Amino acid sequence: MADIDNMKKKVLSGDPVALGKAITLIESKKDEDRLTANQLLSEILSQTGNSLRIGITGVPGVGKSTFIDTLGELITSQGKKLAVLAIDPSSPQSKGSILGDKTRMSKLAGNQNAFIRPSASGGNLGGVASNTMDSILLCEAAGYDVVLIETVGVGQSEVAVKNMTDVFLLLMLAGAGDELQGIKRGIMEMADILVINKADGDNIANANLARKAYENALHLFSPRETGWSPPVLTCSSISGKGVENVWYQVNEYAESISKNGELKNIREEQKKHWLESMLSAEVMDHIQKDKQLQPILTKLEKEVLKGNLTPQQAVQDILNAFFGRQG
Amino acid sequence: MADIDNMKKKVLSGDPVALGKAITLIESKKDEDRLTANQLLSEILSQTGNSLRIGITGVPGVGKSTFIDTLGELITSQGKKLAVLAIDPSSPQSKGSILGDKTRMSKLAGNQNAFIRPSASGGNLGGVASNTMDSILLCEAAGYDVVLIETVGVGQSEVAVKNMTDVFLLLMLAGAGDELQGIKRGIMEMADILVINKADGDNIANANLARKAYENALHLFSPRETGWSPPVLTCSSISGKGVENVWYQVNEYAESISKNGELKNIREEQKKHWLESMLSAEVMDHIQKDKQLQPILTKLEKEVLKGNLTPQQAVQDILNAFFGRQG
Repeated sequence: MADIDNMKKKVLSGDPVALGKAITLIESKKDEDRLTANQLLSEILSQTGNSLRIGITGVPGVGKSTFIDTLGELITSQGKKLAVLAIDPSSPQSKGSILGDKTRMSKLAGNQNAFIRPSASGGNLGGVASNTMDSILLCEAAGYDVVLIETVGVGQSEVAVKNMTDVFLLLMLAGAGDELQGIKRGIMEMADILVINKADGDNIANANLARKAYENALHLFSPRETGWSPPVLTCSSISGKGVENVWYQVNEYAESISKNGELKNIREEQKKHWLESMLSAEVMDHIQKDKQLQPILTKLEKEVLKGNLTPQQAVQDILNAFFGRQG
Repeated sequence: MADIDNMKKKVLSGDPVALGKAITLIESKKDEDRLTANQLLSEILSQTGNSLRIGITGVPGVGKSTFIDTLGELITSQGKKLAVLAIDPSSPQSKGSILGDKTRMSKLAGNQNAFIRPSASGGNLGGVASNTMDSILLCEAAGYDVVLIETVGVGQSEVAVKNMTDVFLLLMLAGAGDELQGIKRGIMEMADILVINKADGDNIANANLARKAYENALHLFSPRETGWSPPVLTCSSISGKGVENVWYQVNEYAESISKNGELKNIREEQKKHWLESMLSAEVMDHIQKDKQLQPILTKLEKEVLKGNLTPQQAVQDILNAFFGRQG
């Protein structure tokens, strides 16, 4: 446990190398590492919860990296420490991604007050999401004031990020054909703030048209209980124009949910969601990894899909095989 | 088992009284009834899958009952047998709802070719959804060609219905202030066909404006892989104008997914989803109902919400308490 004490002290002192190592420990799939990681997490838990957790999503090509690079410079210029995490269940395990992330955020890469963590390595979404949640806690324990969590904008990761952040930003593009640019169903409705990126040069007029179209579309949805209407903003991550306003709106939103008690609810929901999904995942994992059970599971699923068996029968057979054997 | 044989024969012969009794059996929470119900289901399983399963949602007041009443008359007038089921996890257990449902669909109530089943009684959504899925199978075994599943339009039931139907219809209203009529986030994106109801009298112009607004809003979402663009239609359930076109579009959609193989995928996904959610629910039920475990669960959740415990620790404690004891 001397190692844990040492790592804990260094993380709490804000040492970025120790923070990186701690996140690697958390992401490890070895049983002994998981035990150590859980021990570390429980020891730093009282030092967590103090950052503003911001989720950012948008389809590939929308310019998320450049946006985060520019927004990150602004945040750190205000004396705040910024951590950038990425969640990408689809990415293969690759050490090259560290270089990739640092290259695509060139300004932040050399910034003392910014910590950039590459995409968590591949695996199922539940596991990756859980690792990201743990990483947020570690960043908070290390004194980071703002934690940005970037999603790849494909698949189910947006929902996972929405469930672990206080503010959710959706980046979009304007331009020819972009009405069909592939915004996923339901994602627009999850956003607290919508940002039309690349509003520069010839694209400014298009961006303003898109802003109005999205504003109109948003009116078709039910108002939020808190009264917040997600604003639609435009910005250029290259010139920086409009990015300050995005940051202003993020803070407006953060202040409003802090004042009206919504933040407290959001954080409780985050924890409940996290506990429930972890429990459910661990239990199902327990069952699905059970070697004696596996051939039974596969066979029963096939029979259900073929229409030879009702799900009730299948579930009953699974429960009998599992709990009956253990009971 | 003589009872089951008898019930099975009557259900397969299309006897609506036996069908009603069979559904009641399925909804029973008694262990022995559940055993009988599961036996019945597995015996009729080979006779299922032949209906068109249509989900219908919309906020309260949108006129779902009148719409179903009118659409149902049209469907049965074409020589088809129609079953109408409702899913409402929020409704209290009440025998009065049978009268309620028959009153609010006055035309169908006296129709020999229509079977109306009142809202499944209260309980958790998982249980109600599972009962509804089983009821669909029973209706199919009884020879019903079309099964309409109505949701109450609040809560999470839309997702459940979407996951058990082939075609999903969203009913909406036009009129003053209706842009804020409270369409739930994400529901619009799930719809295969959107219908603006009450397009009659002074409301026709408004309905047409709303149709265009929704068409524009839909363009902001990503196109479907199958190429289907959900149409926005208008109709009057009172005059019947436009209802025939809704039915035409439903059949167009049904035909398209049948031809392109999507229906096969949808049905397999329905079964997989049904099996997984039932297994997960039964296992969690097993755990949450465990009397020795309950005080532990409550205590651990509190500690997690207070920030005294990480979810990892809590889950580990729960698994140890549960599997450790049984293992």
